[in-house]
Amino acid sequence: MTRAWRSVVALSGGVGGARLMHGLSRELDADAVTMIVNTGDDFEHWGLAISPDLDTVMYTLADLAPEERGWGLADETFHAFDRMAAYGEDAWFQLGDRDLATHLARTRGLRNGESLTAVTARLCRALAVRCRVLPMSDAPCRTMIETADQGVLPFQTWFVRHRAGPAVRAVRFDGAASPAPGVLEAIAGAELVVIGPSNPYVSVDPMLSLPGFREALAARPVVGVSPIVHGEAVKGPLAAMIPSLAARAPTAGAIAAHYGGLLRGFVVEAGDEGTVEGVPTLGTRTRMTTRADSARLAGEVLAFAEAFC
Amino acid sequence: MTRAWRSVVALSGGVGGARLMHGLSRELDADAVTMIVNTGDDFEHWGLAISPDLDTVMYTLADLAPEERGWGLADETFHAFDRMAAYGEDAWFQLGDRDLATHLARTRGLRNGESLTAVTARLCRALAVRCRVLPMSDAPCRTMIETADQGVLPFQTWFVRHRAGPAVRAVRFDGAASPAPGVLEAIAGAELVVIGPSNPYVSVDPMLSLPGFREALAARPVVGVSPIVHGEAVKGPLAAMIPSLAARAPTAGAIAAHYGGLLRGFVVEAGDEGTVEGVPTLGTRTRMTTRADSARLAGEVLAFAEAFC
Repeated sequence: MTRAWRSVVALSGGVGGARLMHGLSRELDADAVTMIVNTGDDFEHWGLAISPDLDTVMYTLADLAPEERGWGLADETFHAFDRMAAYGEDAWFQLGDRDLATHLARTRGLRNGESLTAVTARLCRALAVRCRVLPMSDAPCRTMIETADQGVLPFQTWFVRHRAGPAVRAVRFDGAASPAPGVLEAIAGAELVVIGPSNPYVSVDPMLSLPGFREALAARPVVGVSPIVHGEAVKGPLAAMIPSLAARAPTAGAIAAHYGGLLRGFVVEAGDEGTVEGVPTLGTRTRMTTRADSARLAGEVLAFAEAFC
Repeated sequence: MTRAWRSVVALSGGVGGARLMHGLSRELDADAVTMIVNTGDDFEHWGLAISPDLDTVMYTLADLAPEERGWGLADETFHAFDRMAAYGEDAWFQLGDRDLATHLARTRGLRNGESLTAVTARLCRALAVRCRVLPMSDAPCRTMIETADQGVLPFQTWFVRHRAGPAVRAVRFDGAASPAPGVLEAIAGAELVVIGPSNPYVSVDPMLSLPGFREALAARPVVGVSPIVHGEAVKGPLAAMIPSLAARAPTAGAIAAHYGGLLRGFVVEAGDEGTVEGVPTLGTRTRMTTRADSARLAGEVLAFAEAFC
């Protein structure tokens, strides 16, 4: 009785969104789903173009991501990294040996004039990722964190180098990026858009900041999944950002309120339904550890969404 | 009774020269020796600045070079390389994971405006290489191989990609490089210059092609070590190049003749003395496998050179 979805778009930052995408990629035909991934975290490190969220999504979809770690590849070694540290090079952002190949190949492609979209498609093919993965933009859009006491920091500097320590006053996006080719078209043609359980401020807002992106979403049925479970972030610094940026307690409801009128439905951890106002909710188990978790949650999100599409 | 050398310069390409340099670095005070290294082999690969001979010299002097392989680091892994191959990137030039750090650090330094000389000094310090290692030039000087049937190939393309297969008609050096700062000064101040057992055409001639280099050498006592042993190259394609480029048999004497009036003395494998004309020779065991071999040969070269300095 389940609907045969022909065009679903999923939006994601890193781990949480990537795991939901993994579930969607197993529940849907490869050509029925388009993944749009945050690139606001992208930065240059060791002279290489690093796209942390794209990598997490690609590796997760390729079943190459580690279960215990939120970045990089499973069964990884760090020989180049150790030697870079010995050379006195920046050692605050760990890059594994196999992972390095991704950054080298991407950097080379970009330098040769390939777009980030084209490079990503090429890497996905090599990794046997069959569904379509689009960076939100081919142009730099840099998430900048305005901190209370350390000035304005690029996202990775704040998140990794400073371990998300400095309190966040505001988040802004630098650059004049526009959506990558195919992004607005994919949304316009989507029966359903799923916003993954990603940090709204630093993983989804970069997309919403792109010209035409929010308007495209507003015209389609959108269902979100909460990254907050019982008042805590499943991962990362989100729980501390909500009181600071939204002046309210870190609840699933705060996330729903952030997206406001965009959402037709919201999926939250069972027990958190009461925190959400003004949008239909589905309470279930939203934490994803195993691939089975991801597939089950994806199936539930799709079934829940049928009512709105 | 051995002379206390205060200023020796050694010229080198890859393995053979590097091993002799290792011996010299053990026989002489660190501040009494300057290594000048061929950079004609340098090229860009995977967007990285690779300096094969500099790396071999640095790693050899740091006791990090493998005994069995003529390049890279001992106890190396190739995880990044394997993944690059899977991504469809050029896989004809193997780069190890630890070795990658050297190229990343060098590339980053050069992009930031550091000279190759400065980057090399920095890497040597990190590797605890105490003697001075200078690239022959800070500017590109590209060794190009004119082949009989494959046109003109950059050195590494000919040497590694085509496994030195295409017959060599001529060797030329592209670019308008001049000697790196300190190179001509080191030679001018040298009590002795040692030309290592490197390929004269592709390892030493690039240096001799630099403006003022040959003239600086001609003014100092120079002793060479033959890279040809009993008619065969200790390593690499030299033996096949001599008949083609010098129209004579591949003997130690052909090497001496190539350097012509530059040499005051020539060290050859015992038994090869008869092939050399017009320059005093020392016959000994010139093959270097162990560090003890390198130190013994270096000591013999220095003792032999005392007569000319």
